[in-house]
Amino acid sequence: MSDRNAPVPLAALVDALRRLPGVGARSAQRMAYHLLQHDPQGARMLGQSLTNAVEKLRHCAKCNTFTEVEICEVCLNPRRDATQLCVVETPADQNMIEASHSYQGLYFVLMGRLSPLEGVGPRDIRFDRLLERATDGVVNEVILATNFTTEGETTAHYLTELMRARGLRVTRLARGVPVGSELEYVDAGTIAWALMDRRAP
Amino acid sequence: MSDRNAPVPLAALVDALRRLPGVGARSAQRMAYHLLQHDPQGARMLGQSLTNAVEKLRHCAKCNTFTEVEICEVCLNPRRDATQLCVVETPADQNMIEASHSYQGLYFVLMGRLSPLEGVGPRDIRFDRLLERATDGVVNEVILATNFTTEGETTAHYLTELMRARGLRVTRLARGVPVGSELEYVDAGTIAWALMDRRAP
Ligand SMILES: [Zn+2]
Ligand SMILES: [Zn+2]
Repeated sequence: MSDRNAPVPLAALVDALRRLPGVGARSAQRMAYHLLQHDPQGARMLGQSLTNAVEKLRHCAKCNTFTEVEICEVCLNPRRDATQLCVVETPADQNMIEASHSYQGLYFVLMGRLSPLEGVGPRDIRFDRLLERATDGVVNEVILATNFTTEGETTAHYLTELMRARGLRVTRLARGVPVGSELEYVDAGTIAWALMDRRAP
Repeated sequence: MSDRNAPVPLAALVDALRRLPGVGARSAQRMAYHLLQHDPQGARMLGQSLTNAVEKLRHCAKCNTFTEVEICEVCLNPRRDATQLCVVETPADQNMIEASHSYQGLYFVLMGRLSPLEGVGPRDIRFDRLLERATDGVVNEVILATNFTTEGETTAHYLTELMRARGLRVTRLARGVPVGSELEYVDAGTIAWALMDRRAP
């Protein structure tokens, strides 16, 4: 299993693949062999899209999601209700809420959540940018749509204190969502119901 | 979970990550978010090492392993016993045999194995190159060291017929290796024993 004798470009590829979350030494090796032997075109595509994504993507100045431009399309849309700000963990969660077709406000994407067990504390999440965004004088309700997991609830509690200390109105998605599950797994109808039924946290 | 609304470089990255074996839509998305948010340097490294590996690596003209040069170091080593040729599925398997310090011959790396269930037939494996290599007039024993899995055994049986039809002497690693397991998981001592105890297949 060791690749002490592997040519340098192969050893470097295996090492780099291990930086992917959830990929250990053995699966990195298998991935490398697979790409080189059976899908060099895929390897080239992946190589280029990694370089390209890192070069071109930045964070939306308003909502923090990944974007190629200064401010993303959703934030620029004048038909959105700028008085509501929905806080989600990831762009995937935002997509799920969009798919429910029951929310017209704007978003803030945390790009993570508090996780004391994994050593992710308040300084690792851009709460400062969220706070700045939420206190623009237009937002009058912050809807917390973090996941209903331990980490998501911890984050929601933390944000509730933070927002209330600034006099902001805070709500949380209703627990129509089964406790312990993640937003991405829930059907759009349930999310629509949970949005309508949002409550004070 | 859909990324219909994702910026193009992000959507392209998620698509490309799905070409990795064992990576589905959700883990591709998680990998992309992780790299972009927490490890852009890792993303750059992975991008460059993929491009570099595909550009620089080729197959050794003698043993078929990945190499940066025409013929790899092992094949060029004059202290190796050129009368023995050990056939393995992957470079990782070759490394395991090297680690047993009980084999001085040369190798041929199949870069795969027969798998009727996965649609991998004799035409997908470079048996033609193995045959050419094994009939160089110097090799007088072909040691089959494919895995002791269904696919590895199928490959060994197929190769036995092929080699015998050419009048080559064929042996198989002894079954010191527990049936159903893969070489990579076995300790070097067991492999040394299995090599000494090799038998007619
Ligand atoms: Zn935005
Ligand atoms: Zn070689």
